[in-house]
Amino acid sequence: MPESPIRKLVPYAEAAIKKGRIIYQLNIGQPDIKTPSNALAAVKNNDIDVLSYSHSAGFESYREKLAQYYTNHDIKVSSNDLIITTGGSEALLFTMGSIADAGDEVIIPEPFYANYNGFATSSGVTVVPVKSKIEDGFALPPISEFEDLITPRTKAILICNPGNPTGYLYTQEEIQQLAEIVKKHDLFLVADEVYREFAYEGAKHYSVMSIPGLEEHAIMIDSVSKRYSMCGARIGCLASKNKQVMATAMKFAQARLSPPTFAQIASEAALDTPQSYFDEVIEEYSSRRNTLIAGLEGIEGVKVAKPMGAFYCIAQLPIDDAEDFAKWLLESFQLNNETVMVAPAAGFYSTPNTGLNQVRIAYVLKEEDLLRSIEILKVALKEYKA
Amino acid sequence: MPESPIRKLVPYAEAAIKKGRIIYQLNIGQPDIKTPSNALAAVKNNDIDVLSYSHSAGFESYREKLAQYYTNHDIKVSSNDLIITTGGSEALLFTMGSIADAGDEVIIPEPFYANYNGFATSSGVTVVPVKSKIEDGFALPPISEFEDLITPRTKAILICNPGNPTGYLYTQEEIQQLAEIVKKHDLFLVADEVYREFAYEGAKHYSVMSIPGLEEHAIMIDSVSKRYSMCGARIGCLASKNKQVMATAMKFAQARLSPPTFAQIASEAALDTPQSYFDEVIEEYSSRRNTLIAGLEGIEGVKVAKPMGAFYCIAQLPIDDAEDFAKWLLESFQLNNETVMVAPAAGFYSTPNTGLNQVRIAYVLKEEDLLRSIEILKVALKEYKA
Ligand SMILES: Cc1ncc(COP(=O)(O)O)c(C=O)c1O
Ligand SMILES: Cc1ncc(COP(=O)(O)O)c(C=O)c1O
Repeated sequence: MPESPIRKLVPYAEAAIKKGRIIYQLNIGQPDIKTPSNALAAVKNNDIDVLSYSHSAGFESYREKLAQYYTNHDIKVSSNDLIITTGGSEALLFTMGSIADAGDEVIIPEPFYANYNGFATSSGVTVVPVKSKIEDGFALPPISEFEDLITPRTKAILICNPGNPTGYLYTQEEIQQLAEIVKKHDLFLVADEVYREFAYEGAKHYSVMSIPGLEEHAIMIDSVSKRYSMCGARIGCLASKNKQVMATAMKFAQARLSPPTFAQIASEAALDTPQSYFDEVIEEYSSRRNTLIAGLEGIEGVKVAKPMGAFYCIAQLPIDDAEDFAKWLLESFQLNNETVMVAPAAGFYSTPNTGLNQVRIAYVLKEEDLLRSIEILKVALKEYKA
Repeated sequence: MPESPIRKLVPYAEAAIKKGRIIYQLNIGQPDIKTPSNALAAVKNNDIDVLSYSHSAGFESYREKLAQYYTNHDIKVSSNDLIITTGGSEALLFTMGSIADAGDEVIIPEPFYANYNGFATSSGVTVVPVKSKIEDGFALPPISEFEDLITPRTKAILICNPGNPTGYLYTQEEIQQLAEIVKKHDLFLVADEVYREFAYEGAKHYSVMSIPGLEEHAIMIDSVSKRYSMCGARIGCLASKNKQVMATAMKFAQARLSPPTFAQIASEAALDTPQSYFDEVIEEYSSRRNTLIAGLEGIEGVKVAKPMGAFYCIAQLPIDDAEDFAKWLLESFQLNNETVMVAPAAGFYSTPNTGLNQVRIAYVLKEEDLLRSIEILKVALKEYKA
């Protein structure tokens, strides 16, 4: 099992905290946004006396309401096209297990969410990276580069839209191009859309589930973790119109019996969250994003790919080894006893020695903390280079 | 992915329910016992406003309290020897992934909990069955039979103690024999002890974690599902003193981020459940068991292996094909519009064409329902044979 790249620095951070250092955590995607009160209230008001297993695919009532939610968002599914999972994480694991045998390959644009490696390893699947570049803002690599990588063992293309760690939001045309190639080669197009609601500047998100003619190829991964700032619930969803995929995924679901009950109660109630909640959240992230990007662009030698979605961005720093720099920030640097923690981006690339001068920054902190973080980063870069 | 044997009959049961039939479900292990009120209250009284990820190994506070609980039960572990998982199911999955590579083998006495097949398949592990016999009450097969099956690819022996579906409780001597053989061949001894508290007639449960000298070989699977009748929580635990196993399992745990938060709150609170709760539960199961066994033994031609633990037993019926009989019970039989649902035992055997005349019966129903079920079964057997 590969280790997650954001774990490596944890011992350094712990040591820094012991020294009394204050750390701005730009390295992890745990939002500070409040969970909708209706979701939390539903759990408090439960009237369970025997906390029993639920249906392995999740509450029927939740699946029906969720199908309605998707339908309202241009994703025409029925409750039978959905399996409720223990986080998007489990949906990814079930997907890999359902579409690939050991030794099969899945093509993924890099940099990508590092835990894809873990789920692939668990399932004996080989990750085949195709490189997206910071110079292109991490847009979809030319489709010919995907074609060059397709072998008889290729089972799927997996994208994250919008992207963690890039913040890239695929255009309709890009999704369409991917749809064509998976149809041509009879592959699956798996889209991790757990950040679907986080799109900025009025940009629109295109789901793989909304493409006519792609029904047998499209698999969507979803989660309540980020949408409702409910990461600890551990509820996600696997959606597909492909009956065979769903039948196989159901066997995985049945083997682990059921998704968590309290969390399903919260997730079902969360579907009633008023639009105003999302408007506020998007406005908050939007201004955080603007603050962060402007700040980073103001640091000499720093290059940023402007994120149009999610709440991450990749920044290229005027240094050679971002991992060394990230460690140094925790071990040796301080500005008024404060420092920042960033995620070295190399861990998000599957190709060795790639993205060595890049870091991933999550903008899940309040704006004043982001501003302070940028100040710290600016001074630190100067001092590190000297 | 193999299908769980208790799923096969679900469509027949659904059709029977549509016809208005009342079904006594002897086929599943979902207890009807009330969840401890303190566990449920803790969830209602939570003061969460951001439902965030927990530590990937589970709350530190929960792990410490759980380690104390185990220590009080003769299992000397510290919080570092524990990883909180999403059900015992996930602990099983992490264990398979951590101790074996694709193609490796795990020896399991059959009949065994059928979902072991699913977790093995997910991990590319081959299940090698060793047969335990109803004539011996499903005692441990002679140790020489294990030795005959050990190959260079064997990584572990997996037992379920007390057993689902057999109800068999291993003696101290049997556990000691297993300990010797795993040490001799440098294997792991994985014990699924999720029914640990359910032991009858004052019999004592021996954990693999209590055997001196076995520290590097012993892995324990645990769960709150049955202990506190909290199946829907989805909280389990993987315990081992083997640092390397735990380090690998932690990578699986980190890839899926964290176990469910509300359920951890409930599970931590459940540790304060008074002994009186367990005394009552055990007394209830104990008299259900006595009723069931006496009733089954009273039916001509039925042979039962008397269970000393858990809440299942295997009964051999005076018929050839238990699956056909189980279907017939749902499709064609009724006594005053009532029937029973049993689990054909063949699905719990890995060896083909084994246990064909056996069924698993779970005694999770109230005594009056068990009595009625026995009556129905008695009449049904007569009618089926005629
Ligand atoms: C891209 C992506 N996919 C999936 C997940 C899994 O999230 P969860 O299991 O909490 O739904 C995450 C979490 O950070 C993520 O960033
Ligand atoms: C023997 C055995 N092990 C493990 C489990 C898994 O239970 P859970 O995932 O609810 O902890 C069960 C559930 O019935 C079981 O019978």
